[in-house]
Amino acid sequence: MSAVRAAPRADALAALSAIRPPFSVVAERERLAAFETDAWIQRREMPMAVAIPDTGEQVQEAVRALARLAVPVVTRGAGTGLSGGATPVSEGIVLAMTRMRRIVGIDAQARLATVEPGVPNAQVTSAAEPAGLHFAPDPSSQVISSIGGNIAENAGGVHCLKYGLTVHNVTGLRAVDGEGDLLEVGGEALDSPGYDLLALLVGSEGTLGVVTQATLRLLPRPQATETLLAAFGSVKAGAEAVGAIIGAGVIPAGLEMMDRVVIDACERYMALGLPKAEALLLVEVDGGAEEAAEARAAVERILVACGATEIRIAKDDAERANLWKSRKGAFAALATVLPDYYTMDGSIPRRALPEVLDRVYELGREYGMVIGNVFHAGDGNIHPCIFYDSAKAGELERSEELGGRILELCIEHGGTITGEHGVGLEKIKQMCLQFRVAEIAAFHGVKAAFDPAGILNPGKAVPTLKRCAEWGGMHVRGGRVPRPDIPRF
Amino acid sequence: MSAVRAAPRADALAALSAIRPPFSVVAERERLAAFETDAWIQRREMPMAVAIPDTGEQVQEAVRALARLAVPVVTRGAGTGLSGGATPVSEGIVLAMTRMRRIVGIDAQARLATVEPGVPNAQVTSAAEPAGLHFAPDPSSQVISSIGGNIAENAGGVHCLKYGLTVHNVTGLRAVDGEGDLLEVGGEALDSPGYDLLALLVGSEGTLGVVTQATLRLLPRPQATETLLAAFGSVKAGAEAVGAIIGAGVIPAGLEMMDRVVIDACERYMALGLPKAEALLLVEVDGGAEEAAEARAAVERILVACGATEIRIAKDDAERANLWKSRKGAFAALATVLPDYYTMDGSIPRRALPEVLDRVYELGREYGMVIGNVFHAGDGNIHPCIFYDSAKAGELERSEELGGRILELCIEHGGTITGEHGVGLEKIKQMCLQFRVAEIAAFHGVKAAFDPAGILNPGKAVPTLKRCAEWGGMHVRGGRVPRPDIPRF
Repeated sequence: MSAVRAAPRADALAALSAIRPPFSVVAERERLAAFETDAWIQRREMPMAVAIPDTGEQVQEAVRALARLAVPVVTRGAGTGLSGGATPVSEGIVLAMTRMRRIVGIDAQARLATVEPGVPNAQVTSAAEPAGLHFAPDPSSQVISSIGGNIAENAGGVHCLKYGLTVHNVTGLRAVDGEGDLLEVGGEALDSPGYDLLALLVGSEGTLGVVTQATLRLLPRPQATETLLAAFGSVKAGAEAVGAIIGAGVIPAGLEMMDRVVIDACERYMALGLPKAEALLLVEVDGGAEEAAEARAAVERILVACGATEIRIAKDDAERANLWKSRKGAFAALATVLPDYYTMDGSIPRRALPEVLDRVYELGREYGMVIGNVFHAGDGNIHPCIFYDSAKAGELERSEELGGRILELCIEHGGTITGEHGVGLEKIKQMCLQFRVAEIAAFHGVKAAFDPAGILNPGKAVPTLKRCAEWGGMHVRGGRVPRPDIPRF
Repeated sequence: MSAVRAAPRADALAALSAIRPPFSVVAERERLAAFETDAWIQRREMPMAVAIPDTGEQVQEAVRALARLAVPVVTRGAGTGLSGGATPVSEGIVLAMTRMRRIVGIDAQARLATVEPGVPNAQVTSAAEPAGLHFAPDPSSQVISSIGGNIAENAGGVHCLKYGLTVHNVTGLRAVDGEGDLLEVGGEALDSPGYDLLALLVGSEGTLGVVTQATLRLLPRPQATETLLAAFGSVKAGAEAVGAIIGAGVIPAGLEMMDRVVIDACERYMALGLPKAEALLLVEVDGGAEEAAEARAAVERILVACGATEIRIAKDDAERANLWKSRKGAFAALATVLPDYYTMDGSIPRRALPEVLDRVYELGREYGMVIGNVFHAGDGNIHPCIFYDSAKAGELERSEELGGRILELCIEHGGTITGEHGVGLEKIKQMCLQFRVAEIAAFHGVKAAFDPAGILNPGKAVPTLKRCAEWGGMHVRGGRVPRPDIPRF
């Protein structure tokens, strides 16, 4: 977004120090080191200071002061983000929301939870459980990652196929814009007049506002859940089964896939006695008892028809937990393959799964790198993991290049460069391939509406058209209309 | 939005006439009369001309030319809008989408329909029916109203409680912005990086772009449907039953309410033999056979517990159609009360229903006007109908004033001034009460990002802060945080 000039460091620290305790400011270099990066560790940056507000009013005060001084503000939740959305800006402030972790209220009748942004995802469900309710979005990081971060990245999870992404489960937000003004968007009513600022803020990666309170939709626990694990002789057969299940009208609560590389890693790491297979499909259906049983029977028939070589069905919760063990432990298990791996995140239309996965393996062979796949197949949200050894010269760079090729492959097949991890710094280049000039211009216009000084998380999520030009211009988006606008800059 | 200067009429007509047929331009005064108003007949305006494009490229050509001349463009679908969203701007062009009514494709496997904006809502379902699919949003106008208009107003319908508003059922859009550039937003993939321009465009009432193609989500027909009609001795008892049904974890496909005024009108008009009651509740549940039967039993128990004096349950589709007859024919039946009526549209949190309805009747008594209520109770989307006789001096004006009071009442109870009809011209004043200064400023910033010249449907949907000041400033929003920004303009 628009460039910000470095303000005198002393002025910024003085302005922040003037805010009443418990607002606090950390400026000692050794204590700042913990904030140099989020879970995307490819880039590190030292912030000027970390500010820790206690209330929404303090967030307003801080942003107002920093806007006046044109000092960048990077909002940080739990720091579990995978695309560098919370990577600091040098000579900028990190606004850490760790202290704003109050559960303001649970309204069981209206099925709403009102929480501060620092509340970890899983604690919303813990607080709602006595009322028989839960918060549906369940990113892998849910025990640690905060609601504010989930909102910033529009987080997904294994159950978003049926229950939606974060944006579908947030009904209201209080957010502070780039001038320090409070915006209250959405609410309890069916519809909100004016433009949909709620949908704009969700997924905006801290570039449009700082969320200070969120109202979340709670859902009743389903009465019954059925879980199946199916083995396939090829990734293609597994991917085709995914299309067949959805095509038959079943909407599973979860539909996950793992390939041979991941299955072997899980066996090495956890010795689960998984079926010997080239691909495993984990299918969960839920609803009323009868409904879930019917769906399970339908899924079983389809799995058989699609050539499953073995099907295991959980008889109780203990067996269900067992079937989920491989999927839930998969990312930890991957450390047994090579010292390092780089997890990609792209979305494609479901029907493109067999073809795209084929091409992903082919790209791995071209680059001489092992790729494993463990992902939300039902959503078409792929997570190819590229294995490498950072001790070997050039391997990190090669993994990044290969990752970029995979994202381009998603675009070519009518997909997008993110499913649930966001753009951050990681995929900023690929944004130039995803969008045409008029679309990126619209993004910048929206940004200016919320943050005219450009202080909120500058350089993330949306590239400047100038950078796109430097990176080699914009490309024809595959599977969509031709883009006549390539020569416009 | 920003003021537009009147361009030489001849220049605009010449520019439009230069576009190749079948693009056509209507400029004869007598033929323009049909376009003076949409279904909100309180204001009439004569446009300079009506332009009828055949393709998205022609829409781009037309908008580009008009942007250069700073001539306003009002896009019009079927003209069934109830808030004046398609009321022409004098010395502006009406862009009538009647010719762009092709169904581009139905993808049964991906459950998507791609259509042009002029396609009537009900025709999407007709086209999808052979595949066992349907388009869920079902505004009362669905036989006539066009998808483009549904998108502009974010239309709802009786089934949106379970299946969502239009915004929840659109996955992709092609739209032409205020400079004539094509934007392609959303798509088939799970998530889209960048800001959510799709959610912004839906419900933006033609002020951000002209939709030239839409990709719509299709849903399978539910296996089973159960319909109940329950009579209550008071509106309050009926409204409390609504809360009890939702609170029990049932999500009905439809949950509609009618009061005594409407029941009596339906009897006069259709002689349906409805139960004698102060309020009727129509509840529809659907899903698998077992699931629907279970939900019906649960609803029946709740209705009894809430004091229903009579419950009728449809045994088959014919009986179901019969139970729906009163609700579907209600607005026609209302003509038997007085010569004219004015239908309001507001949203409130469900729990506020009993109190708000009480106050609506009280306001009716204060104004000496009859009010009838027939509405989507499950959504908290109320439609008070104010009866009047336009032949009597001052009655129209008094109905408008009373309508404004009802909208303010919705705001006071944490609700909004629209559920599904949009803001248009009708509720432009109440927008000043709904939003704080920073929020309206954000709306204008967003508008400028899409339409820097301000030619797209100027004066609709979002008021200028200057007009808000002229209308008496901005007010404290009820049930939410106090607004410290009243004295700011």
